[in-house]
Amino acid sequence: MFFDDIKDISYEGPSSKNPLAFKYYNPVEIIDEKPLSQHLRFSIAFWHTLNYNGADPFGSNNMIRPWNDIDDPMTLAFKKIDALFELAEKLNIEYFCFHDRDIAPEGDTLRETNKNLDKVVAHIKDHLKDGKVKVLWVTANLFSNPRYVHGAATSPNPYVFAYAAAQVKKALEIAKEVGASGYVFWGGREGYETLINTDLALELDNLARFLHMAVDYAKKIGFTGQFLVEPKPKEPTKHQYDFDVANALSFLNKYGLSDYFKFNIEANHATLAGHTFQHELRYARINGKLGSIDANEGDLLLGWDVDRFPTNIYDTTLAMYEVIKNGGLYPGGLNFDAKVRRGSFTPEDLFRAFIAGMDTFAVGLKIAHRIVEDGELDEIIEERYKGYKKGIGEKIVNGEIGFEELEEYIIDKPQIVNTSGLQEYMESLLNQYILNFYLENKER
Amino acid sequence: MFFDDIKDISYEGPSSKNPLAFKYYNPVEIIDEKPLSQHLRFSIAFWHTLNYNGADPFGSNNMIRPWNDIDDPMTLAFKKIDALFELAEKLNIEYFCFHDRDIAPEGDTLRETNKNLDKVVAHIKDHLKDGKVKVLWVTANLFSNPRYVHGAATSPNPYVFAYAAAQVKKALEIAKEVGASGYVFWGGREGYETLINTDLALELDNLARFLHMAVDYAKKIGFTGQFLVEPKPKEPTKHQYDFDVANALSFLNKYGLSDYFKFNIEANHATLAGHTFQHELRYARINGKLGSIDANEGDLLLGWDVDRFPTNIYDTTLAMYEVIKNGGLYPGGLNFDAKVRRGSFTPEDLFRAFIAGMDTFAVGLKIAHRIVEDGELDEIIEERYKGYKKGIGEKIVNGEIGFEELEEYIIDKPQIVNTSGLQEYMESLLNQYILNFYLENKER
Amino acid sequence: MFFDDIKDISYEGPSSKNPLAFKYYNPVEIIDEKPLSQHLRFSIAFWHTLNYNGADPFGSNNMIRPWNDIDDPMTLAFKKIDALFELAEKLNIEYFCFHDRDIAPEGDTLRETNKNLDKVVAHIKDHLKDGKVKVLWVTANLFSNPRYVHGAATSPNPYVFAYAAAQVKKALEIAKEVGASGYVFWGGREGYETLINTDLALELDNLARFLHMAVDYAKKIGFTGQFLVEPKPKEPTKHQYDFDVANALSFLNKYGLSDYFKFNIEANHATLAGHTFQHELRYARINGKLGSIDANEGDLLLGWDVDRFPTNIYDTTLAMYEVIKNGGLYPGGLNFDAKVRRGSFTPEDLFRAFIAGMDTFAVGLKIAHRIVEDGELDEIIEERYKGYKKGIGEKIVNGEIGFEELEEYIIDKPQIVNTSGLQEYMESLLNQYILNFYLENKER
Amino acid sequence: MFFDDIKDISYEGPSSKNPLAFKYYNPVEIIDEKPLSQHLRFSIAFWHTLNYNGADPFGSNNMIRPWNDIDDPMTLAFKKIDALFELAEKLNIEYFCFHDRDIAPEGDTLRETNKNLDKVVAHIKDHLKDGKVKVLWVTANLFSNPRYVHGAATSPNPYVFAYAAAQVKKALEIAKEVGASGYVFWGGREGYETLINTDLALELDNLARFLHMAVDYAKKIGFTGQFLVEPKPKEPTKHQYDFDVANALSFLNKYGLSDYFKFNIEANHATLAGHTFQHELRYARINGKLGSIDANEGDLLLGWDVDRFPTNIYDTTLAMYEVIKNGGLYPGGLNFDAKVRRGSFTPEDLFRAFIAGMDTFAVGLKIAHRIVEDGELDEIIEERYKGYKKGIGEKIVNGEIGFEELEEYIIDKPQIVNTSGLQEYMESLLNQYILNFYLENKER
Repeated sequence: MFFDDIKDISYEGPSSKNPLAFKYYNPVEIIDEKPLSQHLRFSIAFWHTLNYNGADPFGSNNMIRPWNDIDDPMTLAFKKIDALFELAEKLNIEYFCFHDRDIAPEGDTLRETNKNLDKVVAHIKDHLKDGKVKVLWVTANLFSNPRYVHGAATSPNPYVFAYAAAQVKKALEIAKEVGASGYVFWGGREGYETLINTDLALELDNLARFLHMAVDYAKKIGFTGQFLVEPKPKEPTKHQYDFDVANALSFLNKYGLSDYFKFNIEANHATLAGHTFQHELRYARINGKLGSIDANEGDLLLGWDVDRFPTNIYDTTLAMYEVIKNGGLYPGGLNFDAKVRRGSFTPEDLFRAFIAGMDTFAVGLKIAHRIVEDGELDEIIEERYKGYKKGIGEKIVNGEIGFEELEEYIIDKPQIVNTSGLQEYMESLLNQYILNFYLENKER
Repeated sequence: MFFDDIKDISYEGPSSKNPLAFKYYNPVEIIDEKPLSQHLRFSIAFWHTLNYNGADPFGSNNMIRPWNDIDDPMTLAFKKIDALFELAEKLNIEYFCFHDRDIAPEGDTLRETNKNLDKVVAHIKDHLKDGKVKVLWVTANLFSNPRYVHGAATSPNPYVFAYAAAQVKKALEIAKEVGASGYVFWGGREGYETLINTDLALELDNLARFLHMAVDYAKKIGFTGQFLVEPKPKEPTKHQYDFDVANALSFLNKYGLSDYFKFNIEANHATLAGHTFQHELRYARINGKLGSIDANEGDLLLGWDVDRFPTNIYDTTLAMYEVIKNGGLYPGGLNFDAKVRRGSFTPEDLFRAFIAGMDTFAVGLKIAHRIVEDGELDEIIEERYKGYKKGIGEKIVNGEIGFEELEEYIIDKPQIVNTSGLQEYMESLLNQYILNFYLENKER
Repeated sequence: MFFDDIKDISYEGPSSKNPLAFKYYNPVEIIDEKPLSQHLRFSIAFWHTLNYNGADPFGSNNMIRPWNDIDDPMTLAFKKIDALFELAEKLNIEYFCFHDRDIAPEGDTLRETNKNLDKVVAHIKDHLKDGKVKVLWVTANLFSNPRYVHGAATSPNPYVFAYAAAQVKKALEIAKEVGASGYVFWGGREGYETLINTDLALELDNLARFLHMAVDYAKKIGFTGQFLVEPKPKEPTKHQYDFDVANALSFLNKYGLSDYFKFNIEANHATLAGHTFQHELRYARINGKLGSIDANEGDLLLGWDVDRFPTNIYDTTLAMYEVIKNGGLYPGGLNFDAKVRRGSFTPEDLFRAFIAGMDTFAVGLKIAHRIVEDGELDEIIEERYKGYKKGIGEKIVNGEIGFEELEEYIIDKPQIVNTSGLQEYMESLLNQYILNFYLENKER
Repeated sequence: MFFDDIKDISYEGPSSKNPLAFKYYNPVEIIDEKPLSQHLRFSIAFWHTLNYNGADPFGSNNMIRPWNDIDDPMTLAFKKIDALFELAEKLNIEYFCFHDRDIAPEGDTLRETNKNLDKVVAHIKDHLKDGKVKVLWVTANLFSNPRYVHGAATSPNPYVFAYAAAQVKKALEIAKEVGASGYVFWGGREGYETLINTDLALELDNLARFLHMAVDYAKKIGFTGQFLVEPKPKEPTKHQYDFDVANALSFLNKYGLSDYFKFNIEANHATLAGHTFQHELRYARINGKLGSIDANEGDLLLGWDVDRFPTNIYDTTLAMYEVIKNGGLYPGGLNFDAKVRRGSFTPEDLFRAFIAGMDTFAVGLKIAHRIVEDGELDEIIEERYKGYKKGIGEKIVNGEIGFEELEEYIIDKPQIVNTSGLQEYMESLLNQYILNFYLENKER
């Protein structure tokens, strides 16, 4: 036990002043015949939760963690797995995600590294047996090691490509072994620093070759989890190829890969790309590609990936609105790709941060559910576009007319009358949903 | 009457579904022995409310306004004043603000322009008589006319400086005549497009000369309203001299002007400068310079002044927290320097937008008041800094020790223990204040 | 004659101190068997050159133009066409581009508007006869008129869709009639202000329907010019659907439209999307989609479309590098979608700005040509990726191996050795190309 | 010797193809009676040059350095000093800068740390004896150690304040001992993460107390080097108190500190604050506060501190223009606060990067010198503002008139005529200075 001082986190309701209790997230509360836990499918990100040590580009490790004194890498690896499951169970979180390199140290050769992995994976499987906590998705870290300095699948060096391939091969095998629901590709170094030294066409072709190999190998071993691409526009590289959902979709389509992939969308990556979180979710959704979510929050006044725990009710409400419209995230989930602030360095802060994030997403779900149930906002939208359900609008939608008929229809018409977009009003309605959260049902 | 279809906007409470009613702003509700109206001191910005026609850099006028058909400029000027008072009274807003050029058309010479102004000001004074609506502040438009292309007080052309001086002279006289509580300087063109053609030192000196002349003239005529500088970092100019509160304060101090000025802080200007709205408010406040607020909201993914009506509860709560800590804004106020979205072009949208903004600020005030009253957040801060109230900390604050004593004190000490900054936890507390808004008092 | 004081602008060489002469652009200078004029294919943007009046969101018209006194809209329209041809001939520019609404005033109905257009188009055709100046591309203005407040093809109002369709129909007819090389779609209002009132899926479907109608109609009338999409991420709308080249390409592919379109890439739009100008050019190029260029320059510290005349040698060099690698731009061109600064309000400034832009692009072409000819930079890149031309790399590229073979190949290998990316060195080489511009050839 | 393969870098002229030679920086070349070396006063930043290991938030150490195998911290410290002097001498750089923690490892207590420092400082002094390389400035690292997580002088914890005080005390003593020309305060953690947990007023007061103690102690020990504040708006903290020059100046003035400080201005910090590099230099210069420069370059499309080696000729030209107008930087200098790209990991890259930066600044100096000597640009500016040298303009500048006289002067005047700002033309002149760099003098 690593967090002896901390008991299981339980739901105490909105008036609770207990920092170590949920105020809004009641996992067994039922909405639409499903408990909140099934709607939200929360997941712990192994890296930020177990490995983040507080270092930033101007400061060194400062996190107080019960495993800080363990020196032997393999012992440490095992202990962190134990800590993860302890955390997950105390927080009532059913899933977790990890990179291959998060869970086991590298050896001198890939063969040795894989042996280390095998040992830790066996340990994970022991923990998985009781079925309380499961693996949401697995991924390979193709960015931290110096060999990936110029990219992995897009490295100018084919040995690096080979290494990356072998690493993903192993990660897919592990994903299958631990029963992961998905496998994520985040190409942190798949991009460029400057175009003046870059063969962009070859790099993109190679990236596609790499993904095809992954698809083929997954088929071969019978890994049926969902493949997910996680877009990010930059950082660490100056330009990353999976800039945003649309960029990545364009790439996948070009290379005949789109059938095999959905997207894992991260809030802070969306805003770094100049989009709202909701935009990326919506865009993926209407293309049938919303697979999973990396739940965190950026700071729009800061130009780097902040990965804060999400505490903004607007963002979680609009995100959950998209999730509901998507019919849920299954088999994906809400993975907290979030780290505590460097100033929140105690173990207790870790729990407080998860509680904050889970409560905020639970609230977001409940408000979004009310919005969808009431239908008030959706009706305004439906009313707005009703012109396309009849007359000339219907003909447009049905492809029955072209430029000539439309010209004839409009050429002598007087001024067109539009209706208001009602933006401020709809924003005030959204506020009502938030503020009236605890108003008696009859009054709402 | 311009808005015949719209009745007086009244408070109907949070469950109301009437788009033309307040849900949260009850002007007569008492907090701390003062009605909400006195806390909030709402004001209408004449320009965005009466003159904004919907044009943007890529689109032409589209606002449907009852005065659109009036051609004669002076008739139009009078009618808009009438419309303003109708709006203010229907919305229960007690203040308004205006630029000289908002209210009356220019003539061929400044003398003629001033005559036009005199007529409209007389009309305003008629309206002011019943005391229902008052002037919060006055300002001069020193940016729209082509003569100000290279600046006003900072123009390379002394004739332009002279013209601007004469314009502010008249505006100060008007401010006195209408009993304005303040006078604002927003230097939209006081800046530069490129340094390669700019004598920065002379321009800043001239700006200071100009402000000194204004101070002198106000004294001479006995205008005792508060002088306010409104910072903005850019737009329309590439760089504006009053970049943010600190930049402007540095300028005012250098030229011996700081005693005469406070700041009028606009939310969207703060974020364009890379600050939060709260930062600018706080920074002004702790320097004794928080004078008034231009209430609006930007979009942090957009790089220009959006001037939306404020509907973000977080922003209004944190802003009102600063206002409360400031002991209120009197004689300043909350001026809605906000315009309806171009897509919200009906007269009704105007009312809906004000209602959205007023409700959101009323909510912000109430939540902020609870936060201050409960003292929970403030206590965490006090606890955090308590080290400076005793021992070595107290000596530091009292200036009793220097580097040598501090070295001696610390040189053999083992590692220093810090406490958590509790950011995520405090963010979750803030969420509790918002979400529990309608939880029964005993439960909160 | 509108610009009587200004003679034909001629090439006087780099030492010239004549503000109204080219220093670097000699149209008849031969590079690679083609004169500079054919490489660069400069074009005047009608809107920014003839119609821009200096207004910005905070200031009114200030441009001094010889046609300012003309009141009658049709007379003005004719005169501006004359002025355009005078400008083009004096500047030795062979192409121009225009929106339908740039050249003729709107009437009460579309039929009347089209009649106005017919008259002005006839006048343009008279000017075209001598073959000195030609039309690069035509487009329809689907954003300025209030009817387009919520979009054109993506408007919630089918009447607006119909109007836009009729407008593009006419614009295509005009494009054919004036022999335009291309037709551009810039969807300034095809986007959204907020997702909470938007049916994103329907809007995108409708946009595709619209473009299919355009393709069909162009075929029908035999317009064979190149269709071009011009991406922009935002402004005026909060989010525009053609965010960047990749976003637009994804859209075109989804709807089976990509065979019919290339891209018209604008420098300032690229940077607003978070990309370099070169990135967008390169990305389009390697997808076979680089069709034409809107030559201008943004200010990366400003968040709006600045549309400055391009004067940065780095940008024009790297742009022309892409153009050379593209085998030129034909039948596209370099259209100066650029406006003089508001402070550059005299007619002479207009000439000075074009000279600055043309000189800078001519320099860019010459330097880029030397870079390509010398092959020094390209060789470094080739060397960098040589691993993919042999051994395991070649097998990867040829699709001969998969994850299993790659794992076997690498699993026992010791550490991989990478080579430097040489970024700083390559940047210093680029500087040598710029600085040694006039070093004797033998020394370079 | 660490860089045995690399000979002294010598000047070979612009046509040289030797990557390890200067093409433009000839240290003994004379401009205005001073050699380039004295104009430029180049300095090596110890941290980025000797300590930067290539790690970034997503990747681990990858720099190949000859000292990578040395394990003993004190041996390593000594060897790095040797390497620094070897580098400086091979590159012909006369200065270097360092943080206290760059040069020696920390011990268990501050006393032990200081002992380590004493040993390394003695070693530095041995190297300094021959006078070839000198110390430009010294600073204390008050941000890397976990104790500074919440700030140093602005920490909520007075023990941390004491520790920081003791550290600066020692650093000042070292600065005196090594004959440093300056001492820099960069407050990387002097700021806040969120205002909701921050006592802004107390933190700023404490920062002032700290600086006063530093001033007092420097006086006491007779350290006469220049105190410099280095502004930065954010990173690592969300908001840093020395946001930009004006913010910092406002602070220094408020607390009576401005007499003791000038500014050390960094290019990338300027742009992160929303300013051009030239703006910060100019603003400091006209306030008599331009003390020293941290020479590097950012990427305006990236939101973090990139610290690239400067290779942009425009930036170095405009920077050196300000330096010349400042009468040079003495006793400050041009410190390369720049790191090689992570992909440039060989020792040779280090030399190539310095060569690129030094060449680019040498070119900037030469072009700026020509610009100032020719006076062409300055004359345009003088002409632009000439109105303030006579008539009404002169009276304004001399403070002889006020609003009333100015109104009288202008009230009946017809329209004011302005002159063009000539921005595009001046930009094209600047291009001529760059492109004609090697045009024969008589032709230029």
